[in-house]
Amino acid sequence: MREPIVTPDNEAAETSPPAKTSSASASAVAVPLLALGLLGVAVWLGSMPPPQPEPPAQPGAVGPAGQPTVDPLPSWRAGETKQAILEFVEAVSTEGGPLFVPEEERIAVFDHDGTLACEEPYINALFLIERIRRLVEQKPDLASQEPFATLLTGDLEFARRLGQRLLTELAAAASEGRPLEDLEDDVRAFLATARHPIYDTPLRDVTFQPMQELLALLRRQGFTIWLCSGSSVHFLRPVATEWYGIDPSLVIGSRLRMTLREEAGDPETVAGSKVVVLPELEQFNDGPQKPVSIAARIGRRPIFAAGNVGGGDLEMLRWSQQGERPSFQLLVLHDDADREFASDAEADAVVALAEQSGWHVASMAADWERVFARPLDKMAMGRSPEPDNEQPAAAAGEAADTAPAATDPPAAAAPLEARPGS
Amino acid sequence: MREPIVTPDNEAAETSPPAKTSSASASAVAVPLLALGLLGVAVWLGSMPPPQPEPPAQPGAVGPAGQPTVDPLPSWRAGETKQAILEFVEAVSTEGGPLFVPEEERIAVFDHDGTLACEEPYINALFLIERIRRLVEQKPDLASQEPFATLLTGDLEFARRLGQRLLTELAAAASEGRPLEDLEDDVRAFLATARHPIYDTPLRDVTFQPMQELLALLRRQGFTIWLCSGSSVHFLRPVATEWYGIDPSLVIGSRLRMTLREEAGDPETVAGSKVVVLPELEQFNDGPQKPVSIAARIGRRPIFAAGNVGGGDLEMLRWSQQGERPSFQLLVLHDDADREFASDAEADAVVALAEQSGWHVASMAADWERVFARPLDKMAMGRSPEPDNEQPAAAAGEAADTAPAATDPPAAAAPLEARPGS
Repeated sequence: MREPIVTPDNEAAETSPPAKTSSASASAVAVPLLALGLLGVAVWLGSMPPPQPEPPAQPGAVGPAGQPTVDPLPSWRAGETKQAILEFVEAVSTEGGPLFVPEEERIAVFDHDGTLACEEPYINALFLIERIRRLVEQKPDLASQEPFATLLTGDLEFARRLGQRLLTELAAAASEGRPLEDLEDDVRAFLATARHPIYDTPLRDVTFQPMQELLALLRRQGFTIWLCSGSSVHFLRPVATEWYGIDPSLVIGSRLRMTLREEAGDPETVAGSKVVVLPELEQFNDGPQKPVSIAARIGRRPIFAAGNVGGGDLEMLRWSQQGERPSFQLLVLHDDADREFASDAEADAVVALAEQSGWHVASMAADWERVFARPLDKMAMGRSPEPDNEQPAAAAGEAADTAPAATDPPAAAAPLEARPGS
Repeated sequence: MREPIVTPDNEAAETSPPAKTSSASASAVAVPLLALGLLGVAVWLGSMPPPQPEPPAQPGAVGPAGQPTVDPLPSWRAGETKQAILEFVEAVSTEGGPLFVPEEERIAVFDHDGTLACEEPYINALFLIERIRRLVEQKPDLASQEPFATLLTGDLEFARRLGQRLLTELAAAASEGRPLEDLEDDVRAFLATARHPIYDTPLRDVTFQPMQELLALLRRQGFTIWLCSGSSVHFLRPVATEWYGIDPSLVIGSRLRMTLREEAGDPETVAGSKVVVLPELEQFNDGPQKPVSIAARIGRRPIFAAGNVGGGDLEMLRWSQQGERPSFQLLVLHDDADREFASDAEADAVVALAEQSGWHVASMAADWERVFARPLDKMAMGRSPEPDNEQPAAAAGEAADTAPAATDPPAAAAPLEARPGS
C-alpha cells in the first residue's frame, strides 16, 4: 500500500456494493439514446427556451466558507469511500500531522465529462452541432458534406461514435479564424440557453451534486482545483467558471492551434491585435497526455485525482499516485441506470482495477444519495429498459477480458488494464 | 489615446530624460563581455562556492503585507513613469472608480530576462553549460562535437549568439530522458550555488530591485503575476519560485516535448509513472507566440504587461493593450552602462516606439535609483569603457533605420517596429 490512508484501500473497494450493471447494458442503452438524441436535439435546435427563472441549486459550490458543516458531503452515503475522502482531506490539511501537505502542494485534478457531469451526450458535441448549424448559414454547401450532414441531423449517437478527438478536431475546423474571446463568448451564449436532450433541463443541471460538494470541501481545505479534460480548453473554460467557480487559468484541455493576428489600426494607436483559432487540433488531452499536460502546466504532481474509465483518466490517476506526497485517487463508476447511466460496460473490472491499484470507487448507485442537485427525469421515451442486472457477476479477470461492447466507444478507447491473475 | 490613464502617455515618454546610449554602445560592450564571460565561467566552472551566508535582501518581495508604506516603490525615482504606475494600480483596484477592474481580471505578465533580471549573460546558458559538462562525463565524445565543444569552453558570447531558441533546443537535447521533477531539482541545485560571471555574486542578486518592488505592489493590489519568457519553463519555474515567490503554475515558457513513461513495478502496487523530457523543443515562446501562449494558458487578457525590446515582448505589449479593460505597458530600457548595460542598441527608437504606442518606459539610467538590491560591481576587467553618450541623438525615425549592431542578436531578433514618419 503506497497510500497511507487510515482506511485500507482494498477494504474500501471490497465493501462497495457490487456494481449494478453488466457488459450488456451499454448496447441496451445505446439504441434508446439514439432515438432520444434525435428528439432532444430537435427540441433543442427548434427554439431556445427563455432563461430559467430559478437557477439550479448548488449548495456545495456556494456553501458557507467557514467551518465545514456537520456533514460536508451530504449527498454521499455513509461508506468506505466517503469515509476515506473525509479522512484524507483532514489528514493532509492538519498542520503538524504525519500526512500534512503544505497548501501550495494541495493540488486536485478532475476530469470533466463523466466525472463532474453527465457525459450522455457529450455537451461539446451539442455545441459543435450548433456551431456547424451557424457555419452552414454562411457556407451552405457544407450541409451536404459529411460528417457535417449527419451531425446536422442531430444524431448524437453518431457524434458519440466520432469520439472526443474527432469532435475537437471538427470544433477547430468550425471555429477557424474566430478570435479566442469571441469563441468563448459563443460558448457562454450556448450555455445560457441550451437544454439537455435527455433530462430536458438547462445543461448545468446535470453536474453531479456529490462532486460539487467534494469540490467545495477541497476548496475549503486549501486545495487548488484544476480541470483536466479531453474537451477543447476554449469550450471548457466558460463551463468551469459558470458551473464550478473554477478560474479559466485552471483549465487544462485539448488545445486548438492559434495564431496572433495584428491588423493595421488608427495611425494614432497601435495595430489591432487578436489571437485567432486555426483549423487544427494542436494537442488532444487524453490518456497518457493528461499527466504530460499537467506536468507542463502545474509543475506539481497532484495529490488528489478524480476521473472515470471512459474519461481517459487511468494514466492521470496512476501518475498522481507516484508522487512523494500522500495522495488520493477517485474513480467514478457509472452503474446507475435509473438515475444516470450504467455506461461503464465492465463495472466489475473497474472495481477490480481500483482495488488492485489502491484507488477509491465512487459508485453512483451505492455511494451517492443524490446524483443531481434536484431529481431529474429522463424524458418519457428515454427511460430505457435495463437488462437484468442480477446475472452472475464475472470474476474480475474474466470481465477484463470481455471485449468492450461495440456501442461503447469511450470504454473501448481506454481499455481497462487489470492484470490477469490479480 | 486608448489608455485612459491620468498621466498622458506621450507626455510621460517625452519627459523621460534622453536615453544615455547610442547604437554604437552594444558593439563596444560585446568585446569585453567575451573576455569577461571566459573569465567568469572559468571561475564558475572551476569550483562552486559554498552557499552564501547572507541571503540577498529582497525588501520588495518580502515586505509587509498590510498597507503600502509611504513609498511602495522606493527604488524608483520620482518621474512620469513611477507616477503613472502608482496611478494605474490605484485606479484599477479602487472599487466603484471609473477604471476599476475586478480582482480576477487583474492579470500582470512579465518577461523575465532583461525585464526582471540582468540578461548579460543568459542565466539559462550558464545552466546549459553545466548540464553539458555533466553529460560529457557519460558521453565523452560529445566534448569534441560542436556546438558542445565551444560551449564547454565557457564562451558566453558564443552562447549569446546562439540565441534563446537554439539554447532551449540544446537544453532539450541535453535533458533527454530526465524526469521532469529531477530536471527541476537540477535547476534548484544550480541556482543554489552558481555565481554570476560578471558581478561575481550569487545569481539571484542580479534581479532588478525596482521590479521586485513593482511585483510586490501589484501583488498587494490583488494582481496575479505571471511570467512569460522564452526560456524553458522547467528552467524558469524554480527561478520564479525562489527569486520572485511566483508559483510554478504561473510560469509560461518555451515547452520541451515530454512523454509519460510507465514502468512495471511491484505487482502489489501500480506501475511506476514519470513524465520525462524528449530531446525536442515543442514550442518556442517568443514574439508573436507570447500572446498566443498567454491566451492558451490564462484565458484572460492581461491588463499589465512588462518586457524589453530584446525580450521578444512587443507583440505581448500590443496585445495586452487591445483588451476591453484599461491597461498598462512597461518597456524596460537598458541604457545604463555603468550599473547594468546599455544593451538596447537603439534607445531613441525604443523611446519613440513607446511614445507612439502609448507605453511607458522604465529607463534604468533615469528612472531607477537603484538597479539591484545592493550595489554590485562588475569585476575589474569587466568595466567596459563606454563610448561618449553625448553624441547628437539621431531622430527616432533614423535610429530605427540603423542596422542593429552585429554583436547584438537580441535586438536583431526583435526589430523595432517604429513607423517611419511618426
